[in-house]
Amino acid sequence: MIFASDNWSGAHPAVNESLARHSGGFAAAYGASEIDKAIEKRFNDVFEREVAVFFVGTGTAANSLAFAAVNRPGGVVMCHREAHVIEDECGAPEFFTHGARMAPVDGPDGLIDPENLRRELKRFRPGFVHAGQPMAVSISQASEAGTLYSFETIEAIAAIAHEQKLALHMDGARFANALVATNASPAEMTWKRGVDILSFGATKNGCWCAEAVVFFDPEKALQFPYIRKRGAQLFSKTRFIAAQLAAYLDGDLWLDLARHSNAMADRLRAGLDSSRHARQAWATRSNEIFAVLDDAVAQRLLADGAVFYDWNAPHGHHDLVGANERLVRLVTSWSTEAAEVDRFCAALA
Amino acid sequence: MIFASDNWSGAHPAVNESLARHSGGFAAAYGASEIDKAIEKRFNDVFEREVAVFFVGTGTAANSLAFAAVNRPGGVVMCHREAHVIEDECGAPEFFTHGARMAPVDGPDGLIDPENLRRELKRFRPGFVHAGQPMAVSISQASEAGTLYSFETIEAIAAIAHEQKLALHMDGARFANALVATNASPAEMTWKRGVDILSFGATKNGCWCAEAVVFFDPEKALQFPYIRKRGAQLFSKTRFIAAQLAAYLDGDLWLDLARHSNAMADRLRAGLDSSRHARQAWATRSNEIFAVLDDAVAQRLLADGAVFYDWNAPHGHHDLVGANERLVRLVTSWSTEAAEVDRFCAALA
Amino acid sequence: MIFASDNWSGAHPAVNESLARHSGGFAAAYGASEIDKAIEKRFNDVFEREVAVFFVGTGTAANSLAFAAVNRPGGVVMCHREAHVIEDECGAPEFFTHGARMAPVDGPDGLIDPENLRRELKRFRPGFVHAGQPMAVSISQASEAGTLYSFETIEAIAAIAHEQKLALHMDGARFANALVATNASPAEMTWKRGVDILSFGATKNGCWCAEAVVFFDPEKALQFPYIRKRGAQLFSKTRFIAAQLAAYLDGDLWLDLARHSNAMADRLRAGLDSSRHARQAWATRSNEIFAVLDDAVAQRLLADGAVFYDWNAPHGHHDLVGANERLVRLVTSWSTEAAEVDRFCAALA
Amino acid sequence: MIFASDNWSGAHPAVNESLARHSGGFAAAYGASEIDKAIEKRFNDVFEREVAVFFVGTGTAANSLAFAAVNRPGGVVMCHREAHVIEDECGAPEFFTHGARMAPVDGPDGLIDPENLRRELKRFRPGFVHAGQPMAVSISQASEAGTLYSFETIEAIAAIAHEQKLALHMDGARFANALVATNASPAEMTWKRGVDILSFGATKNGCWCAEAVVFFDPEKALQFPYIRKRGAQLFSKTRFIAAQLAAYLDGDLWLDLARHSNAMADRLRAGLDSSRHARQAWATRSNEIFAVLDDAVAQRLLADGAVFYDWNAPHGHHDLVGANERLVRLVTSWSTEAAEVDRFCAALA
Repeated sequence: MIFASDNWSGAHPAVNESLARHSGGFAAAYGASEIDKAIEKRFNDVFEREVAVFFVGTGTAANSLAFAAVNRPGGVVMCHREAHVIEDECGAPEFFTHGARMAPVDGPDGLIDPENLRRELKRFRPGFVHAGQPMAVSISQASEAGTLYSFETIEAIAAIAHEQKLALHMDGARFANALVATNASPAEMTWKRGVDILSFGATKNGCWCAEAVVFFDPEKALQFPYIRKRGAQLFSKTRFIAAQLAAYLDGDLWLDLARHSNAMADRLRAGLDSSRHARQAWATRSNEIFAVLDDAVAQRLLADGAVFYDWNAPHGHHDLVGANERLVRLVTSWSTEAAEVDRFCAALA
Repeated sequence: MIFASDNWSGAHPAVNESLARHSGGFAAAYGASEIDKAIEKRFNDVFEREVAVFFVGTGTAANSLAFAAVNRPGGVVMCHREAHVIEDECGAPEFFTHGARMAPVDGPDGLIDPENLRRELKRFRPGFVHAGQPMAVSISQASEAGTLYSFETIEAIAAIAHEQKLALHMDGARFANALVATNASPAEMTWKRGVDILSFGATKNGCWCAEAVVFFDPEKALQFPYIRKRGAQLFSKTRFIAAQLAAYLDGDLWLDLARHSNAMADRLRAGLDSSRHARQAWATRSNEIFAVLDDAVAQRLLADGAVFYDWNAPHGHHDLVGANERLVRLVTSWSTEAAEVDRFCAALA
Repeated sequence: MIFASDNWSGAHPAVNESLARHSGGFAAAYGASEIDKAIEKRFNDVFEREVAVFFVGTGTAANSLAFAAVNRPGGVVMCHREAHVIEDECGAPEFFTHGARMAPVDGPDGLIDPENLRRELKRFRPGFVHAGQPMAVSISQASEAGTLYSFETIEAIAAIAHEQKLALHMDGARFANALVATNASPAEMTWKRGVDILSFGATKNGCWCAEAVVFFDPEKALQFPYIRKRGAQLFSKTRFIAAQLAAYLDGDLWLDLARHSNAMADRLRAGLDSSRHARQAWATRSNEIFAVLDDAVAQRLLADGAVFYDWNAPHGHHDLVGANERLVRLVTSWSTEAAEVDRFCAALA
Repeated sequence: MIFASDNWSGAHPAVNESLARHSGGFAAAYGASEIDKAIEKRFNDVFEREVAVFFVGTGTAANSLAFAAVNRPGGVVMCHREAHVIEDECGAPEFFTHGARMAPVDGPDGLIDPENLRRELKRFRPGFVHAGQPMAVSISQASEAGTLYSFETIEAIAAIAHEQKLALHMDGARFANALVATNASPAEMTWKRGVDILSFGATKNGCWCAEAVVFFDPEKALQFPYIRKRGAQLFSKTRFIAAQLAAYLDGDLWLDLARHSNAMADRLRAGLDSSRHARQAWATRSNEIFAVLDDAVAQRLLADGAVFYDWNAPHGHHDLVGANERLVRLVTSWSTEAAEVDRFCAALA
């Protein structure tokens, strides 16, 4: 009953096999090997266009370096008030951008509200140095709240961003989960909606350590090789990332794994809906669920070996949780077993 | 005939097996799993004392974050003028320390000369804000020049550093090669000589991606968890580093691999010594060799598939290389085959 | 009818006279001269205790360097969502702290609400690296909204801050205005309430360029000389700041100037209250007033030579301003003339 | 007998008068006032072309922000090994550039040797991320060693810089002294030689606090307003810098002051040349002199009230100073009196 996080899962056997298969002999370091080049090209196929893709080691690095690539002096990134880049990266985005601000935009369900975005951007005026200058909008798909942006909302946000020459960044730590939840293709979810840069996460979904920054406009990436090296994210034996991604993308393994993960979440959501001691805090659609549990039930589950984390209520929603209740996050993964979900749900019933 | 770099090698089969063995099930993320803890403890054994050890992804990260851990405002790191941290990390040490200066100290053979170190440090006076304040001395063992610091020199440098309350950092990207070249134990090479922090490199010597920062004084590491996370070097599935290091350290595999690597370098040195078209540029002892090759021979070798890099002459030694000659670096690794070395040497003869 | 900002005013004649008086001969540079030392000591008297005081050139520098002095890796400053350090310093606080986050705390009237502060701080847990670590709380007195913190609120905020070992910083860009509005002494307003560091502003209130960072606990300032120099805020001829402050503090000139400034604001508030075409947007007490003007009246005033700025509505209060209205800021200063205020009010009537 | 530094001098009476004259009434803050604009235009006349000029508060700020304006990720500034930006700014250039490296280039007499510059630049190759990427060459005119670059050398350095698309920056902390020593016009000394950015220093030569960054190519300055604000160097009452510069430039006061300063240095040099107890350490031409004094004489002078600083020998020239001798720096200024120089020289005789 491990619902702590999808990063508590390990690596898929196919990933290990690929690592073993590519481990022999010599290959050019620092991204110049044949498998590196091959996987970089594979991303063109995945996204149905030419992209510039850079492997990095952590999602925090992917997000932070992406911002660094489009930064300006006094730069500001507009993001949701509960975005991962604000709440969970220990200030890495600010550090890698030399102090750009992550400006919080309010919105329900962990999603930026386009009207609020437009209003926040009005606080900045061209040439008015005091406020700084926005340089990007960042959205997470799936969001940190387990929810999903609709195509329409992404387009609305992209329109606002591009009006002001801001890059639109998508934090795709759980990109595959968003794709399979919506039956969208990678292209449909990103550049066809106006997304400029994607943090493509694979670690949570079956790899060991494989993340990538994908630029849909390669022009924006011209300085990125220096930014990545200087950020200590240029691995010497980069083929170890490429080899993971080879297995991950082969035969759409990544989508299958995400489908399983989402299905386990659906199973868990059903369990919550039929429980008298628990409820979904809000509607979710990816592999993250937020639930309000009776304190007693939560403690019993923890005693039985369940693992999950307490969660902070969203700003302005502290009334979600009553007395003798707690807000918790439940995350399923590619390796979550249905039996474990059922055991958890039974305990809730 | 791949002598480009030891990071062109892949991963040892034992490393892959360990990864596969530890890939199943769930384990606490971010360094809290049992194997993480076990390998951290193993470092205590390796170094014969309690240490604080932190896994990171690249050697550049290890060096840069180590400096960040002991930084002061206006901080200065004293290092050799041709140190890796100056010449090969794209300014990452400066970036992760928010702009500390890597102050070059001259010395023959890629080694800091203690007298020069003492003289450089006189340029700084306590409380004299204009010059900044030294905060660390960094030495590489084995050095970037393929040479080794003697115990006496390390002790002399440590004494100077500690007199002024500077941390002594050792860049151990090729630490194992230095150990086996001198028959020293890890403890003898480090804290017994006065070293305070070690960048422990395993990637070049048979891992995929496994580096660690080792603090011999855990007090210096109190803020390091935040420094590492903020530096995007806290991996979620850290067990993937721990699993690599488990295999690496088991049965002293690491030392065996380094012994092979050094033996291949000895074989290559012998070949250079008996060649009329090539010579060692200076005496080396680890798995890096610097050679002056006749241009024609170099071009023939490259045409035959040899891979090696041209190298910059050390400051003040541009006369090492004559007309129609070039200075190159030759690096052997754990996976270099004797037959390849012999083929190279034959071409030189 | 210049109500654009108090920094549109010039320098008081006594300040110029003092500059001329101290301009001859030689004096030790970089803060070591006799007048520097004398004025530093004068701050002990002003604050009725030993303080460590450092002159800097801008209020932005004072705030930013103050945060740098108490920063930690992954550091976070809790401040009001509309704080000057968030909205008006182009990211300087983030830059000088190498990327600390300015975490917005909500609260009415431009003042941090202690309950909200406590709730925000719960998002951080000791040792939980992902969220970063709070290091300071910053309040502005007088606030950016023209309002004042009560002694009780400052004490409540200080208690929360100190519970968690956070420094309490006060942005005193308009410190004198706050003092005279409340008849508080400098000591009563600051360290007696729990304030640890003060940005002491004098520029807006009659100097040319004279700001200071005052540490009530000199231990916190030990690294500040390096932080200031490295931040390019150690002036060579520091006596030029000391000479300004000599005149500013002599005979309580500073309080007299602030008293005038506040009185002019009172006069303006009265005018607004009796106007049918304008109203105070919220109650203010210092020399900043926020008013909602009929658009037509505003345009007429601007055409008549009045100068004032449109202002952004506070977050969540966009309904303050109706159709055909605008929110503007009106600031009085030490050199504002009553006749000009009256002319402005007449136009409003 | 104050020869500590030219920044021990005060401000010229004309500067104080100008400050007083411009102190009344209201004027737009942050550089938008009429006098700001007028002095900005005056720089066009001084330099005989359109320039973009930005006032800042310290020379350290001018240099550091200039580098920030032309920085690139992994950026490197080539400068003399004993440059002020390396030895005397506490790492501010590294800080303001987020960690660009100040790469030391050797050369006699405190001057970059163009051949050494060319050789150092060969250590960097386009697209080779490990070494970082040079972005500027910085020379000081007059140099920190009291010497001057010839027109030919500046042109040679500019040619090398521009070949590689590096900006050529001139640190003109003592620009006026260099001009009058060579009878060159500001244009002849700068852009006509290939200089792209000038740190124009006025503080040392008769102002209180007046420095400027001058871009000969305004295109390079497009982001500078944000860089300056974020660097806390945008003063609110900028007219206080403009007013100083108004007096400084009026009737070529600045050149007269520098001429006096240099003449006093000539008088001092003559005294050293005729002394048996002292000698010039090397030939100088501006208002800085480096002398080797008998220890006994130095101590007697200090006892008699002379003020001067011991100085570090240039790298590789530690044999300049014999036993019982010391290397000192002697600086004259616009307010140095001939009688004081004579008193000093008499003591040396």
